[in-house]
Amino acid sequence: MNSVKIIEIKKSVFEDNDRAADALRGELKKKGVYLLNLMSAPGSGKTTTLIQTINLLKDKIRIAVMEADIDSDVDAIKIKEGTGVESIQLHTGGMCHLDAEMTQQGIDGLEDKYDLIILENVGNLVCPAEFDTGAVKNAMILSVPEGHDKPLKYPLMFSICDVVVINKIDVMPYFDFDLEKCKEYIHMRNPKAQVIPICAKTGEGVEAFADWLLTEVKNWKK
Amino acid sequence: MNSVKIIEIKKSVFEDNDRAADALRGELKKKGVYLLNLMSAPGSGKTTTLIQTINLLKDKIRIAVMEADIDSDVDAIKIKEGTGVESIQLHTGGMCHLDAEMTQQGIDGLEDKYDLIILENVGNLVCPAEFDTGAVKNAMILSVPEGHDKPLKYPLMFSICDVVVINKIDVMPYFDFDLEKCKEYIHMRNPKAQVIPICAKTGEGVEAFADWLLTEVKNWKK
Repeated sequence: MNSVKIIEIKKSVFEDNDRAADALRGELKKKGVYLLNLMSAPGSGKTTTLIQTINLLKDKIRIAVMEADIDSDVDAIKIKEGTGVESIQLHTGGMCHLDAEMTQQGIDGLEDKYDLIILENVGNLVCPAEFDTGAVKNAMILSVPEGHDKPLKYPLMFSICDVVVINKIDVMPYFDFDLEKCKEYIHMRNPKAQVIPICAKTGEGVEAFADWLLTEVKNWKK
Repeated sequence: MNSVKIIEIKKSVFEDNDRAADALRGELKKKGVYLLNLMSAPGSGKTTTLIQTINLLKDKIRIAVMEADIDSDVDAIKIKEGTGVESIQLHTGGMCHLDAEMTQQGIDGLEDKYDLIILENVGNLVCPAEFDTGAVKNAMILSVPEGHDKPLKYPLMFSICDVVVINKIDVMPYFDFDLEKCKEYIHMRNPKAQVIPICAKTGEGVEAFADWLLTEVKNWKK
């Protein structure tokens, strides 16, 4: 089994997270590095989606991944084995989210050469939504088994995401998931959110997400 | 559509949550009321599991449900429509968990006549694990689509739960979920945890969970 770098993230001392996030975004803009904050509930398929997406993009841009988890390094290893790109594990030590300074600690642990850094945030639909990580954009994954009513229950998460990827559409026949209703609920929270249905397991639909991301990275570098 | 009582939960002013939790448990013991704290990730099927469980138990004991969510009242209405028992919605106002004092606010909103009160906590595998609600026991649901590796990533949640219900076993053939591996990981976190595989949609296996709960309630009243 592969091994990966693990960074034990320290609690932030910086009190004004919004200012820290803006500073980090400014720094990344100067360097031409695009940071994506990817969020979801536990088990919605963030890691598998990333592997498929990265494999579509890695010959076009330089990509690294930071995997945030309370414990374990299984996700960082999966990314490294599945894509070959640099992947590090951030241990939050029980903390339920990452803020901008914690994200900065992760970026400091990466090589200084990437066009795109993806932060896979802690699996949680509540707390991560409250903290600006310094990312250029927020994306989230909602998987079919979780149900189409989630935008009603986790309003903030859906309101701050520019893209909502609907994963595991292959199992739609086995669940009571209404895609149109789900889109309606998402747009209640954020009328501008893009909704991209995919199946990360087979790769179906992932190209649309990869295309969105590639355009974002190119525009950020202008 | 049915309507339900909604309580807007206020932030706790009590600083020592462990003491508040012990006090609440003591109070419930005196009254012979068993409080169960049910946790899970978003969309794992807590509400459906509760409906099936309550329908097996409601002729034997008096049951009420408190549904905690950041927003919406869909779950409390589902419980009321699906079982007929008293069901109230607790709005946490963005807060990612309930502590003992917040739980007390919910209990104060219920009639004073129950053998069993079930708290359906906010869908979150991180923060709710850190706060003793005053419940007699903690239970959690892990659903098959979330994957069998979750005990590796959310150690605290699995270590504090006396029962882990594995839901959605009907879709096992469509997911890479290894039940034996999952049990092994759960017991790494908590060797005494009971693991109960169920399908809340069809009711398969729910009796085992209902039996456990009924025995718990009876023992608590001794």
